[in-house]
Amino acid sequence: MIRIFATGGTFDKEYNMLTGELFFKDTHLDELLQKGRCMAPATIETLMMIDSLEMNNQHRNTIAEHCRNCEEDKIIITHGTDTMTETASFLAERFTNKTIVLTGAMIPIKFGSSDGLFNLGCAIAFVQTLTPGVYVAMNGRIFKAGTVWKNKESGLFEERLG
Amino acid sequence: MIRIFATGGTFDKEYNMLTGELFFKDTHLDELLQKGRCMAPATIETLMMIDSLEMNNQHRNTIAEHCRNCEEDKIIITHGTDTMTETASFLAERFTNKTIVLTGAMIPIKFGSSDGLFNLGCAIAFVQTLTPGVYVAMNGRIFKAGTVWKNKESGLFEERLG
Amino acid sequence: MIRIFATGGTFDKEYNMLTGELFFKDTHLDELLQKGRCMAPATIETLMMIDSLEMNNQHRNTIAEHCRNCEEDKIIITHGTDTMTETASFLAERFTNKTIVLTGAMIPIKFGSSDGLFNLGCAIAFVQTLTPGVYVAMNGRIFKAGTVWKNKESGLFEERLG
Amino acid sequence: MIRIFATGGTFDKEYNMLTGELFFKDTHLDELLQKGRCMAPATIETLMMIDSLEMNNQHRNTIAEHCRNCEEDKIIITHGTDTMTETASFLAERFTNKTIVLTGAMIPIKFGSSDGLFNLGCAIAFVQTLTPGVYVAMNGRIFKAGTVWKNKESGLFEERLG
Repeated sequence: MIRIFATGGTFDKEYNMLTGELFFKDTHLDELLQKGRCMAPATIETLMMIDSLEMNNQHRNTIAEHCRNCEEDKIIITHGTDTMTETASFLAERFTNKTIVLTGAMIPIKFGSSDGLFNLGCAIAFVQTLTPGVYVAMNGRIFKAGTVWKNKESGLFEERLG
Repeated sequence: MIRIFATGGTFDKEYNMLTGELFFKDTHLDELLQKGRCMAPATIETLMMIDSLEMNNQHRNTIAEHCRNCEEDKIIITHGTDTMTETASFLAERFTNKTIVLTGAMIPIKFGSSDGLFNLGCAIAFVQTLTPGVYVAMNGRIFKAGTVWKNKESGLFEERLG
Repeated sequence: MIRIFATGGTFDKEYNMLTGELFFKDTHLDELLQKGRCMAPATIETLMMIDSLEMNNQHRNTIAEHCRNCEEDKIIITHGTDTMTETASFLAERFTNKTIVLTGAMIPIKFGSSDGLFNLGCAIAFVQTLTPGVYVAMNGRIFKAGTVWKNKESGLFEERLG
Repeated sequence: MIRIFATGGTFDKEYNMLTGELFFKDTHLDELLQKGRCMAPATIETLMMIDSLEMNNQHRNTIAEHCRNCEEDKIIITHGTDTMTETASFLAERFTNKTIVLTGAMIPIKFGSSDGLFNLGCAIAFVQTLTPGVYVAMNGRIFKAGTVWKNKESGLFEERLG
């Protein structure tokens, strides 16, 4: 069994046509799993709907608590990309016995060109096959927490050297 | 390094607006990897563009030959869903030292509702993490060759009992 | 008030993932009007859901009857493109006091690349502004019934000479 | 012959995945006309790429100048929705001998749910059939300049009373 915690991020941003701004309403994870015709047993739970620039350690504690208390030992966390690696490191200090995979999207799902469905597919597969630990799944790759950063110029996740 | 062999299937079907029929032109795998912003090193090669109902053992031999001759030991094969499990079994008899993942789509990529991008994400992740063997990656799940069938009523891949 | 009669055609074709064939379920006209945020007062009614190659004079009589009996004098008919011009000519012999606009799509709505939403926008606008008569609205153009044919090589509607 | 002047607006906004903001790059009008398989003879020219909240009378003078100087007497202007009705009134004071139709979108074209393709279809049809004057084409309806306002609560264009 897989538990998916939604925390917001670009992934779930929608366009408010009255204000012209991007905002959060609900997660689109269930639609995506349906589109992917996913039969891997997964339960989705929304913990928060925030931009990852607003993600602080109080939020991270909430996430950690839910990771601890849920029965599943395979966990996917959808998360904004800007601070995804920080949250991964935060969780890596607290969990060694569960497989936790963070993923997100650079382009909102509601845009035709979103990477979200691909990333979710990767996360669903990685979480089922990786040994316990905390990981970031982006760009079709998998990174151990603490070994990855987001290159803000290219928007790509890369190995952190040294 | 990952090698991706395209063989056709629903995945790559397009709509011919002059005849009203679905047909094959080129693979859409490169567009999909770009959409997924995939940085996992992957080379795409089209072996054939056929409906999997037309797939016979001569085609399968061609696929096997390419699996044997390519340098990579991580291989993804996109394949029509109707005979995907047969091709998986065929390859499983011939390969034990490479990780070969077959995937496809129930709905063509060019349809808004396609499962193809999700499935490709899964395949990219599974091929990087699984031990050598031949697998089918569909519905967010992974099946060992020989243990899976396509339920033609539901369109879902399931464990084969007995 | 506008009356929209759906008769099927490429417009409303969907992909049956179990058989790999295109088929008709329901019309997508209501979704399209919603997407277009259309506030022009329009009522949608499905008369039949057929490929226009199957459209015979019995079907055309049914359409004519509904055009005659409805209260609205502004009518849009969605129709397969193959015999759209025949149906237009058929109706032109019977109606001179209503504005009847036939439109359709070369690519099903469910494909990302469909021309259907554009064509429906054209039809909604043309039906509100044209004087009574029967017309074909395709390719952003308007043609009087009897003066138009579908070029099957290009898939474009053109003036019929002579 | 139809001349289309692009001035920006929601229509042409794209998502900058590095900053998470919406921005302007190029107009998508050519892609849309191609998608609509539009054969109505139309030339697209980009005059500016701005949010309509930034549209001032200097911009409007530029638009007016281009409307005056172009050879075509059928003109479509794509425009942000917030001040579209002001620009329409501005132009209505200056033009009586050309048919000028303003349109736009509430949701960017790049979002799957955009109304832009529908609106462009409407504008293409209205501009070919309406007598000279300045109009707003939104929500599948046509409004004379000076008789329309945008209801900012509903995001719909409505008749202005009194």
